Amino acid sequence: MDRATETKKNNGMDLATELKKGNKRAAARLISMIENQDRKAEEILKDCWSHRTKSRIIGITGPPGSGKSTLVDQLAKHLLKEKKKIGIIAVDPTSPITGGAFLGDRVRMAELNGEPDIFIRSMGTRGALGGISKSVSGAVRVLEVLGMDDIFIETVGIGQSEVDVAGIADIVVLVTVPGMGDDIQTEKAGILEVADVIVVNKADHDGVRQAVQHLKALIVQNAEKMSVEAPIGIVSTVASSGFGIPELITAMEAHYLQKADSGAADQIRRDRIKQELLAQIQLRFWKEFEEYDRRNSAVDQRLGAIVSADANPYSEAVELLKEFMEWRRTENNY
Amino acid sequence: MDRATETKKNNGMDLATELKKGNKRAAARLISMIENQDRKAEEILKDCWSHRTKSRIIGITGPPGSGKSTLVDQLAKHLLKEKKKIGIIAVDPTSPITGGAFLGDRVRMAELNGEPDIFIRSMGTRGALGGISKSVSGAVRVLEVLGMDDIFIETVGIGQSEVDVAGIADIVVLVTVPGMGDDIQTEKAGILEVADVIVVNKADHDGVRQAVQHLKALIVQNAEKMSVEAPIGIVSTVASSGFGIPELITAMEAHYLQKADSGAADQIRRDRIKQELLAQIQLRFWKEFEEYDRRNSAVDQRLGAIVSADANPYSEAVELLKEFMEWRRTENNY
Repeated sequence: MDRATETKKNNGMDLATELKKGNKRAAARLISMIENQDRKAEEILKDCWSHRTKSRIIGITGPPGSGKSTLVDQLAKHLLKEKKKIGIIAVDPTSPITGGAFLGDRVRMAELNGEPDIFIRSMGTRGALGGISKSVSGAVRVLEVLGMDDIFIETVGIGQSEVDVAGIADIVVLVTVPGMGDDIQTEKAGILEVADVIVVNKADHDGVRQAVQHLKALIVQNAEKMSVEAPIGIVSTVASSGFGIPELITAMEAHYLQKADSGAADQIRRDRIKQELLAQIQLRFWKEFEEYDRRNSAVDQRLGAIVSADANPYSEAVELLKEFMEWRRTENNY
Repeated sequence: MDRATETKKNNGMDLATELKKGNKRAAARLISMIENQDRKAEEILKDCWSHRTKSRIIGITGPPGSGKSTLVDQLAKHLLKEKKKIGIIAVDPTSPITGGAFLGDRVRMAELNGEPDIFIRSMGTRGALGGISKSVSGAVRVLEVLGMDDIFIETVGIGQSEVDVAGIADIVVLVTVPGMGDDIQTEKAGILEVADVIVVNKADHDGVRQAVQHLKALIVQNAEKMSVEAPIGIVSTVASSGFGIPELITAMEAHYLQKADSGAADQIRRDRIKQELLAQIQLRFWKEFEEYDRRNSAVDQRLGAIVSADANPYSEAVELLKEFMEWRRTENNY
């Protein structure tokens, strides 16, 4: 395996040191290790925990085809001019089987990664129990250590995607396009509760004005659910030409400042770290349980009886957990 | 609380008995209990485990606006004429905050639930660690006990949605519409690996022929990844008028029969039950951990030090898990 060799070549200490120095290749390797659930990644992250920058985490969400990637690229280019260091994590709805990234993203990555102060990474949604959100959290951590000022997380949907940016981002930007159809319009009513800024992208297409008016009406209708101090911003953009990008940056900054002043940003940060702690607990639980199962074939032994309805999964789950705890105590190998 | 009263009124035994008799109201109540993580739901499901029908589980997936709901309604109406009993679980990208369902779905539910042999239920994606996929599994279980022949699970996207139908369905139907844009076309390359049938819906719109040809070309390009015995079916439909629905049913049945013959259906079933067992283990683990945390404020006590970088979440997770296990052993209250 190529990756295994790579991991060996870069032992824990070196990667941590390089990462703290801002080495992007070290960051890329560490993220690969996180994706491959390499135990050493954890050791390195542990070592770097106190070296994190207080990065702004910006969730960019919207349906496929709304132009999220182009928009993020434009934002990144503008923020680069302000001497910001930018990280981009693009969560791809890749194949659950091959886990491959898209050709389009590879091209994009090659282009943007050429900039010294940009780091961009695609992450696929590869099966397993909640694997991707843990990988994304880990990647955010890596980019914090790398010293990024702004970290963009690009993902499809809010509340329906496995990576729920609303739970981890300081600012949430929802990207829409004119004429998305009634059901999307309706869904927005829910999204209004978590979005800080709504972008109507492709504003050179028909129906922009109606889209903006519809959004404003939705906001008025749902006013009681929303923050009075920082009403949702609506910005029209044409990501492909850069139109509206400075306005979008201004809107994002206004929201971030408001959240920082009110203490909301600190609370979000605390919640984010709590989620990470809980995710680590779950990760470790499954690691240990899988080890137990590997040695005892505990799950497979019980599965037959459940399939044939001689046993049920509820009682068997209780028994398995009990047995695992007992095994863990007597083996005492953790 | 209304729901609590309802739960009390229908004690475990009654609901189980009613459910086995095919009482749809009992099913609706039990699903609400599952959504509310009512412990009694588990007892009832346990009691019913051996009374399940061998239902066919059909995943219907596609982007918002592709007409999934209308298509499922039409399929249900056709299958009703064949004397089938139909369950529909519509997974909604609802608000992560209010958890409310859409007005549209409520209207739809009222109409279809009037049919004696149809049961339809919307389920929202309410936060929490992987909550929705467990609720959907539970609802599938309820509908199996209710005796449904076909259970449809309607959800947005494959591999990107929290409810990954590819992991639980016997047949996966991907719904597309003509002219969805290039990025969706590219994403399909991954989806081809899990879809059994692809529907080009809204076939009265422009671009149907191109869409079908594009899909065929994609299938040819990706032929090596796909099943030789059961090539992906492509069916054009106009869900709003019913056009193409009988052809879609035929294509779905051909795929199901092929999977049943090859033993693939049994393997899918076994995997599904295994996932459910693992989900139950995780659920129980968190239930116990939360009880521990509630009594000891274990997480909050450690969070401050992690936020201030005096401690890191990796080591703290290990410690917390260890302490929890010790607590569980000494309290011995499970």
